[in-house]
Amino acid sequence: MEKFEFYNPTKLLFGKGQLSSLKKEIPAYGKRVLLLYGGGSMKKSGLYDKVIHELKEIGATVVELGGVEPNPRLTTVKKGINLIKENQLDFILAVGGGSVLDCAKAIAAGVPYDGDVWDIVLKKVKASSNSVPIGTVLTLAATGSEMNGNSVITNWEENEKKSFNSIHVYPRFSILDPELTFSVPRDQTVYGIVDIMSHVFEQYFHASSHAPLQERIGEAILRTVIETAPKLVNDLNNYEYREVMLLNGTLALNGLTAMGVKTDWATHYIEHAVSAVHDIPHGGGLAILFPRWMEHVAAVRPEKVAQLGVRVFDLDPAGKTDTQLAAEAIESLVKFWTSIGAPTKLSDYGIDDKEIELMTERAMLADQIGNYVPLSNEDVRKILRNSL
Amino acid sequence: MEKFEFYNPTKLLFGKGQLSSLKKEIPAYGKRVLLLYGGGSMKKSGLYDKVIHELKEIGATVVELGGVEPNPRLTTVKKGINLIKENQLDFILAVGGGSVLDCAKAIAAGVPYDGDVWDIVLKKVKASSNSVPIGTVLTLAATGSEMNGNSVITNWEENEKKSFNSIHVYPRFSILDPELTFSVPRDQTVYGIVDIMSHVFEQYFHASSHAPLQERIGEAILRTVIETAPKLVNDLNNYEYREVMLLNGTLALNGLTAMGVKTDWATHYIEHAVSAVHDIPHGGGLAILFPRWMEHVAAVRPEKVAQLGVRVFDLDPAGKTDTQLAAEAIESLVKFWTSIGAPTKLSDYGIDDKEIELMTERAMLADQIGNYVPLSNEDVRKILRNSL
Repeated sequence: MEKFEFYNPTKLLFGKGQLSSLKKEIPAYGKRVLLLYGGGSMKKSGLYDKVIHELKEIGATVVELGGVEPNPRLTTVKKGINLIKENQLDFILAVGGGSVLDCAKAIAAGVPYDGDVWDIVLKKVKASSNSVPIGTVLTLAATGSEMNGNSVITNWEENEKKSFNSIHVYPRFSILDPELTFSVPRDQTVYGIVDIMSHVFEQYFHASSHAPLQERIGEAILRTVIETAPKLVNDLNNYEYREVMLLNGTLALNGLTAMGVKTDWATHYIEHAVSAVHDIPHGGGLAILFPRWMEHVAAVRPEKVAQLGVRVFDLDPAGKTDTQLAAEAIESLVKFWTSIGAPTKLSDYGIDDKEIELMTERAMLADQIGNYVPLSNEDVRKILRNSL
Repeated sequence: MEKFEFYNPTKLLFGKGQLSSLKKEIPAYGKRVLLLYGGGSMKKSGLYDKVIHELKEIGATVVELGGVEPNPRLTTVKKGINLIKENQLDFILAVGGGSVLDCAKAIAAGVPYDGDVWDIVLKKVKASSNSVPIGTVLTLAATGSEMNGNSVITNWEENEKKSFNSIHVYPRFSILDPELTFSVPRDQTVYGIVDIMSHVFEQYFHASSHAPLQERIGEAILRTVIETAPKLVNDLNNYEYREVMLLNGTLALNGLTAMGVKTDWATHYIEHAVSAVHDIPHGGGLAILFPRWMEHVAAVRPEKVAQLGVRVFDLDPAGKTDTQLAAEAIESLVKFWTSIGAPTKLSDYGIDDKEIELMTERAMLADQIGNYVPLSNEDVRKILRNSL
C-alpha cells in the first residue's frame, strides 16, 4: 500500500421516499437554489414536480437550468455559472445521472473563480473552498459522482473531454432512491452496469503491492454486479435489483477501493477520447475498450487478470498458467457483457479507423497513460485498432 | 435493505510518517489541547515524545490526561471533562487504542452538557453539536473507533458497561501509521483480530433481507483478516501485515457493512456484561462467546452461518444441509481463533458460574437483545453457561 488520505464527507440518504429529506438538508446551505437537470425524462416521470414541491415547502427561490447533455458541455457549465452569479444563488441541486452531477461540480467550482472555468477542468487552477455547495438527487446507477469529487466535462469545440477532482465539490448530500431509477431504459441501465464494473477495474488494476483488502472489496462489488445485472435488465422495475445496483455504483467510486493504491484509468482516458470525438455513450465505449485493454496488459502482466478470472468469474486455476487464466477471464467478461446487451466493437457505433490518430492524440494526457501497465501512444493506437 | 443514512466525515491519514500531519490538522480546531493517552507503552515506544514535538511545533498549550484504562471508566471521563473546563481547552488529541478513543468521545460529549455525562452514555441525553472536536493517533488495530461515533464506557461502581453513538463525536481526523502498532504485544494483537472479526459478524448477521453487497464486503474483510492474522502474530514487526490489519479494523466498523441492515450486537452486549463484572479483555470475551452465540442462532436460522462457512472458510457445500455447514463453520472459526492463541472458555479467565445471573441481567438492555435471532434472558443465560 501507499501512504494515503481518505476523506469523504458526502452524506448518503438512501432508500424509498428519501426525496422528502430535501427540506431537511437544503436550508443549512441557503434557499436560493439552482435546479440543474438533464432531459425531459425527469418531467415525464413526475420527479420534477416532486422536487419543486419540496423546494416550495421550504420557500426556496429556484432558478432552473435543464438540458444538461449526456456528455456535459463546457458551454452548459458556463451558463450555470452565469445564472448563479446573476441571481446570487447559494446552492446547486443537481437532479439526474452522473452527467448532471458532474456539470454541477464544474459550475460550483467555476463560480468563485474569476478566470475561465476550463482552467479548473484542465487542472491548471484548483477549485476553492468557496465552491458553491451541491446536493444531488440521483436517477441513474453508474458514475459514482454522487459520492466523490470527480467531474468530467466536454469541450465540444476542441473535441476534448477532461476531468478534475476536488474535495470542495463533493456533494454535501446525495439522495438515492432506487425507485427514481426505474425509468432508466434498458440500454442506459446496461451502460451504467458497464461503467460501475469499469470503475472497479480501474482501481483493481493498480500499480501498488499488497492491497489485499481493497482488491477483495473490488471483487465483492464485481460479483454483486454480475449476480444482479442479468436479473435487473430483464426486470427494470424491480426495487431490490435497482437498490443493489445503486449501492454498487456508489461504492465502486467513492474512494474505498482506491485507498493506498496507484490506480490505472488508462481505459477511461481512451474512452473519453473516443466519446469526445464521436459522442457515443461512455458505458458503451468502456464495454468495447476494456477487454482489449486487458488483452494488451495481460501480455505483460497477466497475474491480476488471472486473479479476476478465478475470484470473480470462478475459473478453475488447476493446471493453468496466468496467461491462460487471463485469456479465459477476458472471454468470461466479454460473454457477460454481451449477455446483457453491451456492444463489443467500435463499428457497432459506426466508428471506423478514420479518426484513430485524433483519438490517440486526445487520449494521451501525458507521454504515457495508466499505471498497471503504462501505455505509450503506440499502445493506445493498437488498443483502438483492436477495438474497431 | 432498509432505508438508511450514511455520513462518515472522519479524515483518515494512513501510512508511514503520517504523524507529521498533526501540525497541519490541529490548528483548524484551536491550539489548547487535551492530550489523552493510556498506559506507559506510549512513553516507552517514543511516541509520546514525537507527539509532544509535533504539538510544540504549532505552539500548542497541552494539558495531559494519561492512564486511561483498557475498559475506560466513567471516573476518567469526568476527570477529562473537568480538565477541559478548567483550562478552557478546545481540542482533544487521543493517542492510543479504542479505549482511549472511546474515552475521548465521552469527554467530548460531556463538556457542553451541564448534567452527568453518564446520561449521555445511557442515551438519555443526546451529544450536542458543541461536543469538543477530537483527533486521534491510533496505536492498535481493533475497535474501529478511529472512524466512527461509538464510545463504550464502564461505570465500575455499578458494574455497568454501556455505549453511545453520535455523529458529533466522530474524530475529525485519525492518523493510522502501521509502525505505531508494532509495539502491540502478541496477546493484544490477537484480541484486536478477534474484535475486528466480531464487528463484521455483528453486522453480517443482520435481520434484513437482500443486502448482498454489504455481506460480500464483510466476507472480504473476514477473508483478509484470516489470511493475514497467522502471519502477523508470528511476525509482529512486519509492516505489511500490520498495515493490512489496521485497514481491516477501520473498515470493519465505519458503517460500511451496516448500510441498510438491522445489525445484531447481542454478543457484544453479553461480552460487555462479562467484562463489566470481571474486567477481562474485550477480544478475549468475544472469542469465547461468539462460537456459542453462533451455535445458539444456528439452531433456529442456520443459513447465514452456513454462508459464512462456504464463502469465508471455503467449506464444500455439496450434499450438506445448512445445519451441517453451520456446525462446520463454527468448528472452523474456533480452530482458527485457537490457532492464533485466542481463549475458548470463560474458565480460561478463572470465571465460574457464580456471577451468571448478574452478567445475564447486565446483558439484557431490553426484554430481548439482538436482531438476527432475538435473545431472551434465558437464551443469554444458556449462552453464558455454554461458554464456561
